[in-house]
Amino acid sequence: MTSGPALAVAAERLAPPAFAPGSVWLVGAGPGDPGLLTLHAAHALAVADVVLHDALVSPEILLLAEGARLECVGKRAARPSPSQMRINERMIRLARQGLRVVRLKGGDPLVFGRGGEEALALAAAAVPFRIVPGISAGVGGLAGAGIPLTHRSLGRSVVFATGHDSRGKLPDGTDWAALARGADVLVLYMALGQAGAIADRLIAAGRPASEPLAFITNATTSRQQVCIATLGTAAAAAEQIPRASATLIVVGPVVGLRAMLAPWQNATPMTPRTAERRAPAQA
Amino acid sequence: MTSGPALAVAAERLAPPAFAPGSVWLVGAGPGDPGLLTLHAAHALAVADVVLHDALVSPEILLLAEGARLECVGKRAARPSPSQMRINERMIRLARQGLRVVRLKGGDPLVFGRGGEEALALAAAAVPFRIVPGISAGVGGLAGAGIPLTHRSLGRSVVFATGHDSRGKLPDGTDWAALARGADVLVLYMALGQAGAIADRLIAAGRPASEPLAFITNATTSRQQVCIATLGTAAAAAEQIPRASATLIVVGPVVGLRAMLAPWQNATPMTPRTAERRAPAQA
Repeated sequence: MTSGPALAVAAERLAPPAFAPGSVWLVGAGPGDPGLLTLHAAHALAVADVVLHDALVSPEILLLAEGARLECVGKRAARPSPSQMRINERMIRLARQGLRVVRLKGGDPLVFGRGGEEALALAAAAVPFRIVPGISAGVGGLAGAGIPLTHRSLGRSVVFATGHDSRGKLPDGTDWAALARGADVLVLYMALGQAGAIADRLIAAGRPASEPLAFITNATTSRQQVCIATLGTAAAAAEQIPRASATLIVVGPVVGLRAMLAPWQNATPMTPRTAERRAPAQA
Repeated sequence: MTSGPALAVAAERLAPPAFAPGSVWLVGAGPGDPGLLTLHAAHALAVADVVLHDALVSPEILLLAEGARLECVGKRAARPSPSQMRINERMIRLARQGLRVVRLKGGDPLVFGRGGEEALALAAAAVPFRIVPGISAGVGGLAGAGIPLTHRSLGRSVVFATGHDSRGKLPDGTDWAALARGADVLVLYMALGQAGAIADRLIAAGRPASEPLAFITNATTSRQQVCIATLGTAAAAAEQIPRASATLIVVGPVVGLRAMLAPWQNATPMTPRTAERRAPAQA
């Protein structure tokens, strides 16, 4: 068995649903590793006419959109986002031109990705769509870093929360004290700038300052970096991490399992093949 | 562009990492639709020597393991699971025979799938492994049902919790009152038998009895069923759902968005091709 054509087995055996002209697929690109794209996502990219993608989607993934026009509509964390309405309008306009439109978002489109709002805009405009879930960084990024999201005794409830609102501030509506009491594991998206403030609230609600915490930057890519700290040292540790990167924060005793798992774990991403496309050597 | 070979673009352009003989890949099969497998998962199934799979993994997915021996090691919810140690031993023994072993689990291997414990067992036995994340039903199953997991105003914090412990009872350690206060959205795994008890606790903690709730059964497959109820009617609604199915429960105002999204949404799964494998007609 060669490893190269192995993936083609799926292409041979499964019939994808039609991607109708004049429709939009809201597609999750996963945490970074192109191997964490779904079969639906790879199919959508291959048949799309146009791909509207976030800034953080990697070039290796965009490589799969062989016939499509690429448009970056990326927004960056902690900046105001006046462009959401324009993204909605652009999707609708392109679909009404009869194109197959992929709206490609990092992670999962519905996990803090505002894909729900985009789907509502499409529905309001009577544009048919499909939501193609992706691997959220909060799930796949942890796995890639060797941190089990749940564990029968250490992690029976997990909360996903966002660390900043549309103004880049700590969200008003989030009851950190209740989450500190109710959730064994906290996975925080877009929270790097608020790491110290959140850690303070969790400690104030009774979580130990010694509780482990991980910062995972560029999860599942060859540039992945994992920084282990504690709630007590979170603010200082966050200062060391470049603000431009996508960073996920995980809080909970499960972080401590990493030391046992990481040495035995292979987490190499899929990579673009070299220019020549000869059959690979026998595995 | 034909839709059939489109997926093969990924096979041509991306080089998968080596699946070394004597190692184990803990692979998430996603919520049900084979199109929600990752490229890594499809690759792993195609090159595996043996696949140890859960009972709930669908035949369409197992079809992709063309050269592998299949062993069902499934456990069912709410039954005692004396076999976890035997599954661990089996994985280790097969890997030590020099085989490429896939341990295939529904959803994501680390989201209430005990994949973390399996990875710890492999590490303790010095067996190299890879964790291949999958789309958890709590993310992809909701999307397939037209329910956005998060929403900028209705859902800023999401909790994933399990509705039963290893004895099939409501977990002792879960602070439902804190979760009721802290989480805008609650996603409950393996909770069908405890739906009424959980709803009572959420209402007692201040969530309105009129708050919408969805039961999603056989998510993302052609057999998917969605039943909408409220916290107040959850116990009665749960009685109508067959216990043998995999059912996910979602609580929160986001459930109300489904009525707007579902009419415009395509959620057709990938399906096995017919026996003949001729090139499909022009799309």
